[in-house]
Amino acid sequence: MTDTRVQDLIGLLDEKVVVTDPDILAGYRQDWARDPDAGTPLAVVRARSTDDVAAVMRWATTHSVPVVPRGAGSGLSGGATAVDGGIVLSTENMRAITVDPVTRTAVVQPGLLNAEVKAAAAEHGLWYPPDPSSFEMCSIGGNAATNAGGLCCVKYGVTTDYILGLEVVLADGVVVRLGGARLKDSAGLSLTKLFVGSEGVLGVITEVTLRLIPAQPPASTVVATFAELSDATDAILAITRSLRPAMLEFMDRTSVNAVEDAMNMGLDRDAAAMLVARSDSPGAHRTEETGIMATACTEAGAAEVFVTDDPDEGEAFAAARRFAIPAVERTGSLLLEDVGVPLPALADLVQGIEKIADARQVTVAVIAHAGDGNTHPLIVFDPEDRDMEERAHQAFGEIMTLAISLGGTITGEHGVGRLKKAWLPDQVGDDVMELTRRIKNALDPAGILNPGAVL
Amino acid sequence: MTDTRVQDLIGLLDEKVVVTDPDILAGYRQDWARDPDAGTPLAVVRARSTDDVAAVMRWATTHSVPVVPRGAGSGLSGGATAVDGGIVLSTENMRAITVDPVTRTAVVQPGLLNAEVKAAAAEHGLWYPPDPSSFEMCSIGGNAATNAGGLCCVKYGVTTDYILGLEVVLADGVVVRLGGARLKDSAGLSLTKLFVGSEGVLGVITEVTLRLIPAQPPASTVVATFAELSDATDAILAITRSLRPAMLEFMDRTSVNAVEDAMNMGLDRDAAAMLVARSDSPGAHRTEETGIMATACTEAGAAEVFVTDDPDEGEAFAAARRFAIPAVERTGSLLLEDVGVPLPALADLVQGIEKIADARQVTVAVIAHAGDGNTHPLIVFDPEDRDMEERAHQAFGEIMTLAISLGGTITGEHGVGRLKKAWLPDQVGDDVMELTRRIKNALDPAGILNPGAVL
Repeated sequence: MTDTRVQDLIGLLDEKVVVTDPDILAGYRQDWARDPDAGTPLAVVRARSTDDVAAVMRWATTHSVPVVPRGAGSGLSGGATAVDGGIVLSTENMRAITVDPVTRTAVVQPGLLNAEVKAAAAEHGLWYPPDPSSFEMCSIGGNAATNAGGLCCVKYGVTTDYILGLEVVLADGVVVRLGGARLKDSAGLSLTKLFVGSEGVLGVITEVTLRLIPAQPPASTVVATFAELSDATDAILAITRSLRPAMLEFMDRTSVNAVEDAMNMGLDRDAAAMLVARSDSPGAHRTEETGIMATACTEAGAAEVFVTDDPDEGEAFAAARRFAIPAVERTGSLLLEDVGVPLPALADLVQGIEKIADARQVTVAVIAHAGDGNTHPLIVFDPEDRDMEERAHQAFGEIMTLAISLGGTITGEHGVGRLKKAWLPDQVGDDVMELTRRIKNALDPAGILNPGAVL
Repeated sequence: MTDTRVQDLIGLLDEKVVVTDPDILAGYRQDWARDPDAGTPLAVVRARSTDDVAAVMRWATTHSVPVVPRGAGSGLSGGATAVDGGIVLSTENMRAITVDPVTRTAVVQPGLLNAEVKAAAAEHGLWYPPDPSSFEMCSIGGNAATNAGGLCCVKYGVTTDYILGLEVVLADGVVVRLGGARLKDSAGLSLTKLFVGSEGVLGVITEVTLRLIPAQPPASTVVATFAELSDATDAILAITRSLRPAMLEFMDRTSVNAVEDAMNMGLDRDAAAMLVARSDSPGAHRTEETGIMATACTEAGAAEVFVTDDPDEGEAFAAARRFAIPAVERTGSLLLEDVGVPLPALADLVQGIEKIADARQVTVAVIAHAGDGNTHPLIVFDPEDRDMEERAHQAFGEIMTLAISLGGTITGEHGVGRLKKAWLPDQVGDDVMELTRRIKNALDPAGILNPGAVL
């Protein structure tokens, strides 16, 4: 019953690499965005090497077959949603890493998980900072493809800031090496950076050269709760005006309660908002920074402020924040936002979201990487209730429109994928969309790379 | 006598904006690379606004006239070399800046000088780190167009790491706004980063949104001299293995002597090499870092090691290092390299350069942003001596070929321009050149933007 084109592909690669078992295919139709419109692929290729990826792309070009690149499948915007009659090209089995402590770089295959990159760096006393909340399950290839962020990015920057070089397989199977293990390189166009965040529509990333930095110094953590939301946003501005925190996270009442339900940590269920801030400044300067942050919270009207130098205690609060998405997900199906605004507009965004939630009669839990203005409103709905689901989708669009109206972005770190692409033109404008299409067409004239994503 | 097309342009803009006086035109034919093959432009447009730039590009598209964008004209690779029958489009008069201390960003027009951006940020207690040695005379637009580096980049990163958004005028005069004052933004392709370092071949940058960081803490400086070059490179590796210096600069004997001739600072003329390193770690940690750096120098066999916490004294050595290019230029005409290698190859690069200098019988002074492997070999020749000039050009090519063979780059921070483009394919390969052409053709199908640069 297998398509003769797929038989060709199996001939080029290996039976174990090209999977056509429908039960296994089913697991590759969607990523964590659970796009209900996901198609059914002809096959999944679990590439072992760059050569495998190049063979798939040559074959796909010959047969005009769409290819959806996939990392760990933990994406939240539907960037790795299978299309009918296409191939899902998974890099999950490409997992090599080499760390060079002298140049402070790592050369990594895309399937290695973010946490594994961090662990390999740590063996040499080094650190790879970007830390999506999903760091234990997301892959470095997916991180590169979405320009992933995380909690420490407010001080340390996002994925693109750590990518010095890439190996990329183009639509026609040509393999290019871009950049390399050099901190400075102005030779030619910034193609490395162009592929970062390109969500699989321009090529398939098969190797990443990462910049590493010395291990993070010990960190101290400040936790503050607020009876009023606006006091919390005031505290955020006061903190970021004075220093660069190594983390500055926000949870609203709904998220705090969802986490407390799940983890039973003794969090203040009555607080309108909780902040978790961190300083990793070296030596005694850390105490100075936590002091400034604690004072900022108190002066903004915090109900309670707590400072700890104990790394485990501090990490428990960061873990609570990271667990917010799965915790809220226990209360219903989620539509997951990733909107960001310039910091002074954060209060307007959060208040606007409350109004949208009221108007649409849905629960919206808000967590945020507050220090960089990147928020994750989580719209909760009962999937059995079609009317509520419809209202949730209305709120989903309205929150993006609100962020755009505040000079913000529809996605700070998850990518556009398929779920957010209808709003991309509203954010960037028609001329930028046209520019985007010109580059897409120049690199993938047949349109076989991740069709339907971003554009 | 003026070309009717130029009359059209004057009609569109203003007589003061469109300059055709041959004496003034002469000053716009070359940048600091002094490309002997520079052409003579039809006119220089000193744009006052984005609208002026857009009008020029629409006019140029209509008449198929080449346009060479120009910042301060301080480029060192011939990226702003006029072409016969073209327009030089200068952004020197676009000089507005707005600093927002809350989002810690600045919106800057391209003509403002790097030093002026730093000064405007400093008024708000903020810092724009990238610091090309020419920071007092180079413009932020040129910095963006070349992805400029500098001395502090070893710790703080290069220009692209600080660019959050751009306004760009495309070849056909369409104005696009990319990114914005948001630390995180994964919406659509990374077009902002694509234009950074594109050297005017994809569009004209008319506004830059910069990320700023809190003011640099006080810095301490370590100066060490070495009787043996290899001891200095050992010290560099020992330092970068232990910490991230805020500056780690290298000067060889020729550069030290040229600076001493010019500045009479009491530098050690017999030293084979001098290092200037800096720590700006907060509080007492700074003393710890300068101690580690001083010990690394001593253990590597330094002849003399000197540590100062006095900012003025430390700055005098940094200024000496920055003055090396003009100081060496007093001894003859220069061919200025900008080659970079992965750090462990630094000693091989410096030794290889010595061999090339011996074989070609030319003086090559070497200064380097040693901490990031980016070196500036300065090839000195007597412009009256045609044979020596020829040998200097041979050495120029051989040094780039050497850097490529060591896994390095032909340009770490100056750009390819016209002077280095013959070596770009050797570094990046034919497939990357083809990819580059596809993007160039997609964005500038008529090839009117900075023709002859990069490609």
